[in-house]
Amino acid sequence: MMEQIEQEVREKAQRAREAARHLAYLSTEVKNRALLTMAESLLNNQERILAANKIDVQAGREKGLSRALIDRLLLTPGRIEEMAEGLRAVASLPDPVGEVESMWLRPNGLQVGRMRVPLGVVGMIYEARPNVTVDAAGLCLKAGNAVVLRGGSEAINSNRAIVAVIAAAAEDAGTPAGAIQLIENTDRAAVNVMLKLNGLLDVLIPRGGAGLIRTVVENATVPVIETGVGNCHVYVDDGADLEMARSIVINAKCQRPGVCNAMETLLVHQQVARELLPGLLEDLRAAGVEVRGCEKTRELVPWVVPATEEDWATEYLDLILAVKVVESMEEAMEHIYRYGTRHSEAIVTRDYARARRFLREVDAAAVYVNASTRFTDGYQYGLGAEIGISTQKLHARGPMGLKELTTYKYIVFGEGQIRS
Amino acid sequence: MMEQIEQEVREKAQRAREAARHLAYLSTEVKNRALLTMAESLLNNQERILAANKIDVQAGREKGLSRALIDRLLLTPGRIEEMAEGLRAVASLPDPVGEVESMWLRPNGLQVGRMRVPLGVVGMIYEARPNVTVDAAGLCLKAGNAVVLRGGSEAINSNRAIVAVIAAAAEDAGTPAGAIQLIENTDRAAVNVMLKLNGLLDVLIPRGGAGLIRTVVENATVPVIETGVGNCHVYVDDGADLEMARSIVINAKCQRPGVCNAMETLLVHQQVARELLPGLLEDLRAAGVEVRGCEKTRELVPWVVPATEEDWATEYLDLILAVKVVESMEEAMEHIYRYGTRHSEAIVTRDYARARRFLREVDAAAVYVNASTRFTDGYQYGLGAEIGISTQKLHARGPMGLKELTTYKYIVFGEGQIRS
Repeated sequence: MMEQIEQEVREKAQRAREAARHLAYLSTEVKNRALLTMAESLLNNQERILAANKIDVQAGREKGLSRALIDRLLLTPGRIEEMAEGLRAVASLPDPVGEVESMWLRPNGLQVGRMRVPLGVVGMIYEARPNVTVDAAGLCLKAGNAVVLRGGSEAINSNRAIVAVIAAAAEDAGTPAGAIQLIENTDRAAVNVMLKLNGLLDVLIPRGGAGLIRTVVENATVPVIETGVGNCHVYVDDGADLEMARSIVINAKCQRPGVCNAMETLLVHQQVARELLPGLLEDLRAAGVEVRGCEKTRELVPWVVPATEEDWATEYLDLILAVKVVESMEEAMEHIYRYGTRHSEAIVTRDYARARRFLREVDAAAVYVNASTRFTDGYQYGLGAEIGISTQKLHARGPMGLKELTTYKYIVFGEGQIRS
Repeated sequence: MMEQIEQEVREKAQRAREAARHLAYLSTEVKNRALLTMAESLLNNQERILAANKIDVQAGREKGLSRALIDRLLLTPGRIEEMAEGLRAVASLPDPVGEVESMWLRPNGLQVGRMRVPLGVVGMIYEARPNVTVDAAGLCLKAGNAVVLRGGSEAINSNRAIVAVIAAAAEDAGTPAGAIQLIENTDRAAVNVMLKLNGLLDVLIPRGGAGLIRTVVENATVPVIETGVGNCHVYVDDGADLEMARSIVINAKCQRPGVCNAMETLLVHQQVARELLPGLLEDLRAAGVEVRGCEKTRELVPWVVPATEEDWATEYLDLILAVKVVESMEEAMEHIYRYGTRHSEAIVTRDYARARRFLREVDAAAVYVNASTRFTDGYQYGLGAEIGISTQKLHARGPMGLKELTTYKYIVFGEGQIRS
């Protein structure tokens, strides 16, 4: 059994490796044609995909998956159209491969430059959503990478149908065979094999719950781009525009509470707490938010539940908010340093010097002045696409677009130079 | 015992973490002053450092270390001056921190940019050379990082003396206490603790032999930048300038055979083999190189030892050369793909189309046209410094200078924008 799993994963990674070699210098024209053909083929094979998805959804219901999980799993004609639209959008983005940002001349006459090239083979390990299958395949292809996909067992029939359709379409359009691989064995052991495939996989990108990401980070020998936890804060400064603060806080908490760039703790300067909190927290309560606060918050708004140490450290991903009144921006930054996960942090202020200082001193993938943390997203930043949000510092930080799916090589032009 | 080791490593990493927080926005002026003070202090404390080094060298001789290892370990007044000079050179380099390469305006008025910021805490794991201690501390400091150094046990007394001197000097000049940490326990277990210090260390850079690097890559949960193996090739094309080829081949093999960017296998197009090889291989033999060749090479130069499959895959790091005659550039590129380690690869050619194709299709950290592979080096590329040569694709590839010791954060300026 173990041997069979290992064999499947290795063979597919090997095929991806071979494809990657040729994908690396495939013309933009062929890659774009492939993306458009994949989009068309998804629509033409809608019924096949929906039928496969029906099996997954049925099995999920029998297994007692939550309503939210079933919703993530479910495909509809509208969602298939969205996937196709996503591929067309990727086709319209500029190709990052081959770009040489600068070249320079050395005193000995050597001309040295850095050329953007694909990473090679990307291993994607993810959970329920079948749309990740299409997004990842499209982005990897455009950036010249082969991809080995390992989706969740709940979506296996959907993923099989989708990959059969898009891999054939890509090949028809002229991309090397093997560029898009799906691991079909749904045993956890298949993931464990991927984690150690140095030499065949160049990078692993896990997307999903904290457990999955921890497993990958702790066990992989292949380099990993960690994505994940966001314990994000909004700090409302002394003298802030309180109408603006109110609108940013409500947006950052309520617009989509289940995602990593949603705010989890609100920090309020003591000078504005009395004016801001009673009305704002009432509005949040009306919007269904459970509020847990520090002592000072509870003095101002008695119905607030007492916050514990654990609350400051929790990414709720839910309609729950922790609130703390602070004496100064320094205390707010100290709190963020101590409990934050370096994802997205915002200040609402009118003060120039404090805005600059917050931007400079707060260490996070994204630091905001007077805007909602919810903007941490590849589309919102204008990257045109997103394969995930990195929460590590190596290689890429924050939203990752096409460029983050590439690396570079030095190219050096000489006329016989040798080293002395 | 294990507990003691773990305690030392954790405490020092924790101190480095605290220092890193303030180092991140220390002014360039203070950092440069610290580097110059460190340089001065090395010279002022020369006797103390040389005395400590003497103990290491003595112990090394008693342990029967090879002459080459003793030479790496040995410090002299001249070598201490070189270390000081290295620090002064780093002080003169531009500070990468704070740079915003571009900002762009989104349709909703948000202004988004990427600001270069330090990685945080760098863990360096290395072997005998005490100069790495100074180089790494200087480069990390300039890039705004704290560093946790773990040198080889053979150099422990030298490293202790050096770190005592430079850490005190840096602190005197105004850098936060704790920015330069040395793990003093020389037990291997200390390395194992470092490998798992996620949250305290942001990146590990191993420098040394293949065994050390494998251990780190296989066991670390902290992100690693792999440095190391270079099985580099020079391909001499049909129609190449054979005088140029001769000079590049001799330089790439003989100028410093023990380093990763030295050539290990020579590939020669069959059309020029008869003219090039007999004289060139004779010259190499005269220079003390053992030559191992394919059948066709041996037909032309009978004294050549037969090469085995293993020779094609070996990084000799020695005065040994493998030679293969190929029928075409395609065969040469196929050989490089199969046996190369993606480090440095060169073509010697007069043909424009083949030069372009080799540059595009060969996947390596550095690809050369008409120059020696020995140029793969931070100083030679004009980066001004080098903390190692990356052989992975993530984050940095090839020579790593100050910029590669940084990451970025998104900074976003708004005036109340929320996401709809």
